[in-house]
Amino acid sequence: MTVPRDLDCLADATELVLRRRPGYSLEAPFYLSEALFKLDMDAIFARHWLHVGVEADVPQPGDFCTLEIGSYSIVIVRGLDGEARAFHNVCRHRGARVISAEKGSATKLVCPYHSWAYDLTGGLAFAEHMAPDIDRDCLGLKRVHLRTVGGLIFVCLAEFPPDDFDEMALTVEPYFGPHDLKNCKLAYQVDIIEDGNWKAVMENNRECYHCSGHPELMRTFFQFFGHSESDVKPRQQRYYERYCRIRGEMSDIWDSLGLPSTLVELLDDRATAFRLERMALDNAGESYTSDTRIACQRLLGDIGQPRLGALSLHTQPNSWNHVVSDHAVISFILPLSAEKTLLRTKWLVHKDAVEGRDYDVDRLTEVWRKTNEQDAGFVALISQGVRSPAYEPGPYSPNENQLEKFLTWYIDRLKSHLGIIQPMVPPPLGEAQEHRLSS
Amino acid sequence: MTVPRDLDCLADATELVLRRRPGYSLEAPFYLSEALFKLDMDAIFARHWLHVGVEADVPQPGDFCTLEIGSYSIVIVRGLDGEARAFHNVCRHRGARVISAEKGSATKLVCPYHSWAYDLTGGLAFAEHMAPDIDRDCLGLKRVHLRTVGGLIFVCLAEFPPDDFDEMALTVEPYFGPHDLKNCKLAYQVDIIEDGNWKAVMENNRECYHCSGHPELMRTFFQFFGHSESDVKPRQQRYYERYCRIRGEMSDIWDSLGLPSTLVELLDDRATAFRLERMALDNAGESYTSDTRIACQRLLGDIGQPRLGALSLHTQPNSWNHVVSDHAVISFILPLSAEKTLLRTKWLVHKDAVEGRDYDVDRLTEVWRKTNEQDAGFVALISQGVRSPAYEPGPYSPNENQLEKFLTWYIDRLKSHLGIIQPMVPPPLGEAQEHRLSS
Amino acid sequence: MTVPRDLDCLADATELVLRRRPGYSLEAPFYLSEALFKLDMDAIFARHWLHVGVEADVPQPGDFCTLEIGSYSIVIVRGLDGEARAFHNVCRHRGARVISAEKGSATKLVCPYHSWAYDLTGGLAFAEHMAPDIDRDCLGLKRVHLRTVGGLIFVCLAEFPPDDFDEMALTVEPYFGPHDLKNCKLAYQVDIIEDGNWKAVMENNRECYHCSGHPELMRTFFQFFGHSESDVKPRQQRYYERYCRIRGEMSDIWDSLGLPSTLVELLDDRATAFRLERMALDNAGESYTSDTRIACQRLLGDIGQPRLGALSLHTQPNSWNHVVSDHAVISFILPLSAEKTLLRTKWLVHKDAVEGRDYDVDRLTEVWRKTNEQDAGFVALISQGVRSPAYEPGPYSPNENQLEKFLTWYIDRLKSHLGIIQPMVPPPLGEAQEHRLSS
Repeated sequence: MTVPRDLDCLADATELVLRRRPGYSLEAPFYLSEALFKLDMDAIFARHWLHVGVEADVPQPGDFCTLEIGSYSIVIVRGLDGEARAFHNVCRHRGARVISAEKGSATKLVCPYHSWAYDLTGGLAFAEHMAPDIDRDCLGLKRVHLRTVGGLIFVCLAEFPPDDFDEMALTVEPYFGPHDLKNCKLAYQVDIIEDGNWKAVMENNRECYHCSGHPELMRTFFQFFGHSESDVKPRQQRYYERYCRIRGEMSDIWDSLGLPSTLVELLDDRATAFRLERMALDNAGESYTSDTRIACQRLLGDIGQPRLGALSLHTQPNSWNHVVSDHAVISFILPLSAEKTLLRTKWLVHKDAVEGRDYDVDRLTEVWRKTNEQDAGFVALISQGVRSPAYEPGPYSPNENQLEKFLTWYIDRLKSHLGIIQPMVPPPLGEAQEHRLSS
Repeated sequence: MTVPRDLDCLADATELVLRRRPGYSLEAPFYLSEALFKLDMDAIFARHWLHVGVEADVPQPGDFCTLEIGSYSIVIVRGLDGEARAFHNVCRHRGARVISAEKGSATKLVCPYHSWAYDLTGGLAFAEHMAPDIDRDCLGLKRVHLRTVGGLIFVCLAEFPPDDFDEMALTVEPYFGPHDLKNCKLAYQVDIIEDGNWKAVMENNRECYHCSGHPELMRTFFQFFGHSESDVKPRQQRYYERYCRIRGEMSDIWDSLGLPSTLVELLDDRATAFRLERMALDNAGESYTSDTRIACQRLLGDIGQPRLGALSLHTQPNSWNHVVSDHAVISFILPLSAEKTLLRTKWLVHKDAVEGRDYDVDRLTEVWRKTNEQDAGFVALISQGVRSPAYEPGPYSPNENQLEKFLTWYIDRLKSHLGIIQPMVPPPLGEAQEHRLSS
Repeated sequence: MTVPRDLDCLADATELVLRRRPGYSLEAPFYLSEALFKLDMDAIFARHWLHVGVEADVPQPGDFCTLEIGSYSIVIVRGLDGEARAFHNVCRHRGARVISAEKGSATKLVCPYHSWAYDLTGGLAFAEHMAPDIDRDCLGLKRVHLRTVGGLIFVCLAEFPPDDFDEMALTVEPYFGPHDLKNCKLAYQVDIIEDGNWKAVMENNRECYHCSGHPELMRTFFQFFGHSESDVKPRQQRYYERYCRIRGEMSDIWDSLGLPSTLVELLDDRATAFRLERMALDNAGESYTSDTRIACQRLLGDIGQPRLGALSLHTQPNSWNHVVSDHAVISFILPLSAEKTLLRTKWLVHKDAVEGRDYDVDRLTEVWRKTNEQDAGFVALISQGVRSPAYEPGPYSPNENQLEKFLTWYIDRLKSHLGIIQPMVPPPLGEAQEHRLSS
């Protein structure tokens, strides 16, 4: 009667991984088991590049912010040299958490317990009353890999991160560059703790089959996201024609502004998997607002065109990002337990934009706040439903094809971690693009 | 020092089952271990007929109610044909919970995630955007066995339910029929989450040795419930004589009205175990009220006699029910975890009774609400006490003989599940009754 | 990525115990693992003498108090003969908790469930409705070992307690006797639930390297506690000279009053480990108050000298106690889970002192309440920090030498329990003192 919420060992996980049925949702333990959650944390979150913030989180030298990723606590700090670095937030004396604040600015990182102090590059700068023979050079804060691209911050907790980050960076930079997220500031940030497994949150984000549950978002977002054109229903015919017309108009605008708009979908053949799409938006098509017009008078970068549609970047395992002409919505998830997931969303505007004059936070954030809350409701339904021993995986719609790609990637990553297959060797980037990209 | 709150495997459970000492309370893991809780859910609650409601929960076609039984969620719905049916409340697409409301009325059961819709017999009626080759006939809601008797609803989660339900139904129907619970309505319902194992809740319900803790109930309920006559204490002599006199009077009333009143106690020799007793009540003897008089002017059925005593039906593993002339109190439990148990209590009155005119809810429910709260306090003491490694099973009083029968049944059911013995083959009903019934 | 918060079996614990690196903090599972917590409860708390209260908790015959130690519940009761005794607080009938109140007074201990009653020596005095053949002599409350010394109450849950309690008692009594804690009353008591393992709480208590985090305490407490004299920093030179001067003055006072003041430190070579120190206090040096003067006009015992410094008694595994001229601060811990620990603190004053006239509770308790809260903050930082898989044990300062002794004791106790070594055979007390004591 009781679902196997915990698995005895990796043998069970291996069996579940091997019998995953393509085209169908996962078996219940993938959403419920704490043992599989630990495996996910080890195999996915401790070994891949994670999107965990933006450069605007630490704008000035000495600025720091802290973050918990599973059992890890890390601190991201911008050094006096202007470089952002990440460290494990654990004192090398007796293991106290060094920085408890979420954000701040400091010249040294000082543990409040016995006053051990570390400089902004992690070195141990002060530790009183210790024996003279301890090796202070070995007692600096432990380093975490950090990379930035297009104003976004990625970290990797592994000693040896996947080596394909550069490929993603080279591809993403030309798309994100013109929007100049490096010169943005944080207008608003909100956390939601969703009552569901992180994969249920990701699956929900990767399809628009459920988009009738998002009336606010649907004012701009076309429901054809991920849909095959052959699946347009008769009642959708006029809607579809409008979609095609607007997409044509936007294509001309992007081309005239020199904004790259080729779809890049590299979701299931590499460790650092991602998807880039420049999308047309409905109605005025300017911004994710209730009236579809811009919410911030100061536009991003130097483009000067309010009607840009949206640039979306999905990364695996944990983020989705939307850039419109006047702001960016940055979303990433961090698993908390088998059935709890943190969704953190940040709204960025130009650093010179002034709240109250150039933008109003409520108007800026309303659509995605509501969308996220609606999605959290859907994710909770999955978590509740799959608890039943009567649950069995059901078939995906063709319109849920990005879920299938996400799960293919996920299962392959587990297989690699469990030693079932060799790690994926992605084809050279140019070749993959030629093969996979469609307009 | 620490009690083994969890057991490594079924071997431990088997050992505990085999060494259970008759006449003594259970060892601590039976009340505390989550592993044994799972075994109970598998062996007892997923395989036996459970009392989970009344026909009045879904009075009209299209009416539904939902219920969680361990990890399961089920929906009970009355079809257009007037039949009540039960289904697993899990969408066949991606496993979302279909119905979140506790009660409602609908023409279709529609999943809010992607709008898959099921008709009232469970069939898949609508699922857009799916590949043409999926077999929609295989994607209806999964069925749960449901039976009714005397206005009570029983379900069984097993594929093959115990086949002795009919024996119980045949026995119970003549006792319950005259009270016509099918034509009742729900006057009040209350849930208590008790801090104790479900077996501690059952044990508490099955004896009146602790009844001095129930001053309100004791206005009507005779403390001799379950007591052997040889155990009447000198100080109880006058009380006992009154009990004998009233029992004689009631017997005449029942006989004159044609109400069957033979005690049926079939608690330890069959899967679908139960006990039926028609009981005399003290003082005015009409109803479970503070003044022992009826609380509802409209009596149940067509009997027309307010002084009927009480008809009680105990079922194993999870219910007790009391029918008096003017109302019925329906109680069943659903285990939530090793140390948490839901007790749901429903008060039924004639469907034509009008609140405010014919009955007052506070007066109707006061005695059993207080009794349930008092019992919850006792159950919590057991849960607290047996946590101590110093606890060892103590001896039951002869007046706790129904606990012993309940535990005999329980241990036999586990033995059968664990393959230690063959399942019980009950004797034919008539023979058993002849052998076991006493006036 | 995930720290091994639970250990599969004793084999893992054995490995962790064997590879403990002297001079370094413990590996993370010692602070986080529930399996190791259970081992600690079995090996340490169920087998050693625990300081759990004071005689003033049960001043009169019939007075009782209850206490939870891990899964155990015990009741301490003073008999009609004036002796304090301890029992398992579990009814011998069906295991209900007998006494739920924290404190009270009674002539019998009566279980509220079925009214079984026990006399103050634990014997079963009343149990109605039981079969005549039960052996009532075997159904008394189970006994727990209890000893008192200097007004403090110790219990041991083991059947065979460590036999070196007398050695501690003989040593402690001459130090504590003059302060006459037996004739004290409880002025105040407060519980804090600390977010950390009990060993982190103990470690924190055993060093003053972190004392700059206790500004209120530092008005009296000298930061040189546990420090080696060779480690006095130049900036501390004047502070150190004052410390030496005051220590000299206090030594004269103690000698003139006949108060023993030799340091006794027996922390790592015996089961019942302890440390006694008579300490000089800074400034007026009278009491742990914000102005360093006495908080209670009625002094303890018959000494009559308000400037006595402090007498401190540390016991392992779970207490620290400070006696000043006008009051005593009694602190002991009880582990609740791997990462939760109860700290209970009691302030004792002379039994004839009158609140409002002789003392004010806020003033009496302010310094140690604040100190305890500050310490709870430090302990939480350890618990948060060592969760990170990036944590590794760091080196202790020479000023943390009592932590090292505590851990040496702890690891030896686990080795003994796990059968890795023979139990420690302490040297005869006199010899050990000669060898270890320093002024």
